[in-house]
Amino acid sequence: MGKILDVIIVGAGTAGLSALREVKKQTDQFVIINDGPWGTTCARVGCMPSKLLIEAANAFHHRNTFAEFGINGADSLTIDIPKVLRRVRKLRDDFVSSTITTTTELGKKAISGRARLIAPDTIEINGEKLRAHKIILATGTHPIIPEPWRKLGKRLLTTDTLFEQKKLPARIGVIGMGPIGVEMAQALSRLGIQVSAFGSRNTIAGISDPEINETAIQLLQKELPIYLGSRADVVTDHKKIQITAGKSAIEVDSILVALGRQPNIDQLGLETLGITLNDKGMPSFNSNTLQIEDLPIFLAGDVNGEKAILHEAADEGFIAGYNATRSENFCFKRRTPLGIIFCDPNIAIVGQRYQELSKQKNKFVIGKVNFANQGRARASLNNKGLLHVYANAKNGTLLGAEMCAPAGEHMAHLLALAIDRKLTVHQLLHMPFYHPVLEEGLRTALRSITAQLPVGRVPDLTLCSTLNTNAID
Amino acid sequence: MGKILDVIIVGAGTAGLSALREVKKQTDQFVIINDGPWGTTCARVGCMPSKLLIEAANAFHHRNTFAEFGINGADSLTIDIPKVLRRVRKLRDDFVSSTITTTTELGKKAISGRARLIAPDTIEINGEKLRAHKIILATGTHPIIPEPWRKLGKRLLTTDTLFEQKKLPARIGVIGMGPIGVEMAQALSRLGIQVSAFGSRNTIAGISDPEINETAIQLLQKELPIYLGSRADVVTDHKKIQITAGKSAIEVDSILVALGRQPNIDQLGLETLGITLNDKGMPSFNSNTLQIEDLPIFLAGDVNGEKAILHEAADEGFIAGYNATRSENFCFKRRTPLGIIFCDPNIAIVGQRYQELSKQKNKFVIGKVNFANQGRARASLNNKGLLHVYANAKNGTLLGAEMCAPAGEHMAHLLALAIDRKLTVHQLLHMPFYHPVLEEGLRTALRSITAQLPVGRVPDLTLCSTLNTNAID
Repeated sequence: MGKILDVIIVGAGTAGLSALREVKKQTDQFVIINDGPWGTTCARVGCMPSKLLIEAANAFHHRNTFAEFGINGADSLTIDIPKVLRRVRKLRDDFVSSTITTTTELGKKAISGRARLIAPDTIEINGEKLRAHKIILATGTHPIIPEPWRKLGKRLLTTDTLFEQKKLPARIGVIGMGPIGVEMAQALSRLGIQVSAFGSRNTIAGISDPEINETAIQLLQKELPIYLGSRADVVTDHKKIQITAGKSAIEVDSILVALGRQPNIDQLGLETLGITLNDKGMPSFNSNTLQIEDLPIFLAGDVNGEKAILHEAADEGFIAGYNATRSENFCFKRRTPLGIIFCDPNIAIVGQRYQELSKQKNKFVIGKVNFANQGRARASLNNKGLLHVYANAKNGTLLGAEMCAPAGEHMAHLLALAIDRKLTVHQLLHMPFYHPVLEEGLRTALRSITAQLPVGRVPDLTLCSTLNTNAID
Repeated sequence: MGKILDVIIVGAGTAGLSALREVKKQTDQFVIINDGPWGTTCARVGCMPSKLLIEAANAFHHRNTFAEFGINGADSLTIDIPKVLRRVRKLRDDFVSSTITTTTELGKKAISGRARLIAPDTIEINGEKLRAHKIILATGTHPIIPEPWRKLGKRLLTTDTLFEQKKLPARIGVIGMGPIGVEMAQALSRLGIQVSAFGSRNTIAGISDPEINETAIQLLQKELPIYLGSRADVVTDHKKIQITAGKSAIEVDSILVALGRQPNIDQLGLETLGITLNDKGMPSFNSNTLQIEDLPIFLAGDVNGEKAILHEAADEGFIAGYNATRSENFCFKRRTPLGIIFCDPNIAIVGQRYQELSKQKNKFVIGKVNFANQGRARASLNNKGLLHVYANAKNGTLLGAEMCAPAGEHMAHLLALAIDRKLTVHQLLHMPFYHPVLEEGLRTALRSITAQLPVGRVPDLTLCSTLNTNAID
């Protein structure tokens, strides 16, 4: 055991690589350790391959609009699933290789193997001990699989294995209706697979607004059967798989387990730190500094179980890397919450959720728009979905939004900026809305907020001589 | 000639109807006069039918991505142009009828006929004289057609007649490469028409940034031949039409004239007002009050020749209607400029244009992103286009943007909000950017701005205890 390093980063996923970027600015006395294949969860098995599958599925699904548009021959279109999956892997490999470049350039500073803490400043790796002033744990997560289901063998899929398939069976049961379950159930169904979907709750995709949830479920149920509100179980023999949930029993060929992900902390040695771990074996840490209690250790990215979202993992890597290379910890504000589920129409949640707001004392009002009759949406035949915007009932400050809406991913960004800047609904209505765009639907929702405020509707435009719209009339 | 009305509105298009909304709030002593078919330019012959044609064209064009996605049979798809046009008219009629509802409810207050000013407070209409305290002129525009070309008869199309066609000829020459020319040339080409496009300038669609212009032209030229930089002329006999431009001579079956639109002021009686008219017969007016000189007359919407864009026409109707029903004029600030051309990739211009900025003394920096290698764009096979964002070179305040980029219509709105709020590039980077989205491309452009600022790159995140990102490091 030689010199003491400045920083050891354990995990070379999004958070680890983001930490690495900060650490490298301050010191060359570091190593980064990775267990298993290099490349991020996002690029290897998450955001990117799932989006590649979704884009192919949506392109194929779009044929259902062709007759209405005046295009003949949609019935002749067929989907070549093996080819779809080959493209998924080909581009996935590209995305993965771009995340690997940074670490391959590091030479011996990038170590393959499973790290284990043996003291707050010491890691054991490949039989060797490494000491450092600071340690960043960014080991990520893996899919949850109920133990008894493992006997399904290759007939059990997760996002770790789905994109590796050469072909897909005729019938797939998707178990779990969180973001990943919803995205994959719809995509597989649109690719022509007979999908049955199961969720133990009555809400899907993390939506908390009852009307948005109801809309999302109704739209999805037009495409595939969804069984909600009962825990699914799997009964199997060598030939067939039956999924039971409540009174339903559905036979499938494979199951895709989408029950969430759990932190990679097995054998990480957290128990050697001399601190209290919770019932899941997790230590407590500060979300704004990412420090574990008062130890020289930081917990960054999906592993900490807080926000398993790429841009948050990148932020956490930044915070951990920033603090690990400084003598004192800086406390960083976290970004305005933004979650997007890439189903069609998109589901998105921005700022404070309906459920959070409902629990607070301050009253809020809801601006609503239904896209069924929205002009541009009708023109492009994606006129379905609902968007709710929440604002402070007194002064109209924008607080949050939930939606299942066309181009939701884009409107969610617009709302995220408005909420991040603490804008009022009047300030947001001051911007130009072009015609004909889906954002005019959002404007309808915003205007329905102003109608509920004490100040009432005021002109969008401001006077040349004053900055206060309320001064008009 | 009886009582004196409060307001006469001449023209029931977008501006006129918007004015009507304000006028109705204050008085019932008004009339609204319309010449020709009721219904707005936008709904009848503009934004809406063009978008309907574009959506069908893009849906059909999308088949070119099918093989790459893994979808077989794209070659079997055919387009049924008469059916496309029937859908355009069917939905167009719906959109028109919704704009007509307001005026049909007015009974005798809505008058059909051509109005003519005979004094600053008097209109002659259908042989009758009507007096009012205030008059709003919102008569709109009509397509410019060079007189000699009229002999082409039905073989000459404009947006007034294009959407009325039952079928389309094999070869169409689109003359004029402004926003409408570009949109229609691409859409017709994507519908399988052999389109040749002609523009007298070397820029298209109103783009002023040379690199964006070059990108847009290159992308469009992959789909159809474009002849730029020479004025097109038309030579015809009874059988064929030849378009000549510079050294090129192209034979077509019909021409679509897209040379812009001119104000409907013929026989409007502006010369009776006793004020100076410019060489185009137009009076001078105030853009912030819309009053013509010191007369009790307001000039609103496309007719005033300033900004022929729906949301601006609606704003102008509001301003004119607001001021026409008050004893003094209020001066309204106009919105952050926003122009979107719905070609694919979208062209958009936000805030101050490149050309304006280049003429100013204050230095600006350009943030750039090319979408060729952008992750999400690659996944969805729309990875082409370029986006430039302009910011103050000293403090990073966002000034404008020009782009030819996928989902440009959405990113243009995000940038319009940022510019409207006078945000700096650092403030915009404080918002969350989800992954994988096209907005991450925009973020790349924003980051390339920060790299050029005196303050340099600062973290996106802010400290808990301070609002100033610059305080970090």
